[in-house]
Amino acid sequence: MSIITESANRCFSGTQYVYSHDSSTLGCRMRFAAYVPDRLEGPAPTVLWLSGLTCTEENFTAKAGAQRVASELGIVVLAPDTSPRGEGVPDDPDGAWDFGLGAGFYVDATEAPWSGHYLMRTYVEQELRQLAVAELPVDDARVGISGHSMGGHGALTIALRSPERFRSVSAFAPICAPSFCPWGQKALGHYLGADRAAWREYDACALLEDGARVPEILVDQGLEDGFLGEQLMPERLEDACKAARVPLELRRQPGHDHSYFFVASFIEDHLRWHAERL
Amino acid sequence: MSIITESANRCFSGTQYVYSHDSSTLGCRMRFAAYVPDRLEGPAPTVLWLSGLTCTEENFTAKAGAQRVASELGIVVLAPDTSPRGEGVPDDPDGAWDFGLGAGFYVDATEAPWSGHYLMRTYVEQELRQLAVAELPVDDARVGISGHSMGGHGALTIALRSPERFRSVSAFAPICAPSFCPWGQKALGHYLGADRAAWREYDACALLEDGARVPEILVDQGLEDGFLGEQLMPERLEDACKAARVPLELRRQPGHDHSYFFVASFIEDHLRWHAERL
Repeated sequence: MSIITESANRCFSGTQYVYSHDSSTLGCRMRFAAYVPDRLEGPAPTVLWLSGLTCTEENFTAKAGAQRVASELGIVVLAPDTSPRGEGVPDDPDGAWDFGLGAGFYVDATEAPWSGHYLMRTYVEQELRQLAVAELPVDDARVGISGHSMGGHGALTIALRSPERFRSVSAFAPICAPSFCPWGQKALGHYLGADRAAWREYDACALLEDGARVPEILVDQGLEDGFLGEQLMPERLEDACKAARVPLELRRQPGHDHSYFFVASFIEDHLRWHAERL
Repeated sequence: MSIITESANRCFSGTQYVYSHDSSTLGCRMRFAAYVPDRLEGPAPTVLWLSGLTCTEENFTAKAGAQRVASELGIVVLAPDTSPRGEGVPDDPDGAWDFGLGAGFYVDATEAPWSGHYLMRTYVEQELRQLAVAELPVDDARVGISGHSMGGHGALTIALRSPERFRSVSAFAPICAPSFCPWGQKALGHYLGADRAAWREYDACALLEDGARVPEILVDQGLEDGFLGEQLMPERLEDACKAARVPLELRRQPGHDHSYFFVASFIEDHLRWHAERL
């Protein structure tokens, strides 16, 4: 495995990198962002950030303002792209923004034509993590995960399936119950097929119902988020956590919407919360 | 005068607005961003931010992370677009990014065809300011000015021409001596014509030579900035300030480049510096 440095920008007391590499999992060239603070004494605690629909590795990197606090705390922050890219990678036939390119939903697709490239679960959980541990000062024993919207769904489901590999999990405005919302039903139906049993390992609420556990979860949700009722459904996560006795700190933020202005407002809280647990 | 709210996003303890209005000065519809903290007790100290080449009102707003500190300090931050826009507004005939659209250079053009729309000096100094004072909680007696690159040039020249109207001035990687660099020579030559005497009121160093004064100036400059030697020339500003006995704090920042990762790293220092003086 090898990575190429696409860009390196000094930011606060550290460097914001963008790397590219040939992904054997996804069968295409992929980019990911990594913020690396100065003066790390060996492999460092790391937060893996998963972005939402339409995003690349750039949105979080440019807009969230995470570098200031990551630098202070000595945390590496990884931010992959949200889908495979490039020639030969199929997209939504209608060009919709909620499926296909920019919308990998962090699943391993089983249905043609998606199963050839759309294996974002394995990419994030295995290939990217191994690459980061091999090439960057990432401590494999101290990795937390967070994300926004579709990426919040990714963070919750990945952590619930592998709590031993992620010591902390949080999310901003996550898609909490994709089996019950239009975005999730479209994505899971196309990537995984009509059998809803196959969807359960990609649905945070279903995972909790089926016995998955994490020590605790932090979620921020804006109350003026236009996707709140139809797509995000935090009340379902609240119910599932309660039934599973998983402590959930669900912070409902008045006035906040679904944008990166919302993420930027609370990223410091999340990074400090992860740092305490990593 | 009236303004239309194009967007309003809650961010930290305040709201990030984008407004639009019909500009009588520029003869086109213009957008500008305004961050307004909560709980202001009347008109507030305000920092006017001028962006660099290719930018709109969005770049600074999305990438600089200014809202956190502006919210804490109770400062309004205004960020206009960098040129007139729209049908009938002429652009660089070759479509270059360093002139025309996105590159108004904060001058009042006197040469055809630019003089019909490219009056960014009057727009920023008069129309936008009057609009902001009339429509937003902006205290006309407590306005500071800052900017990046072409916008740093704008901030320095505007403050030097009207020190009584701007109580503080700072800049990030400003074009310090446009009469001597390719960007400036192209812009001033086209907008103002070949007579270099007309350029002097749009050149910070020439203004200082000609007697303009401000109480003090704060400048940050990245030492890995690819435009440093050919376009920015901070050493000329240093010499001009020294000769004029204007205190200049020129902070040379190792490792930093020309990007918004650089601006984000030091915007807190600048906003606190302005707040102390407003």
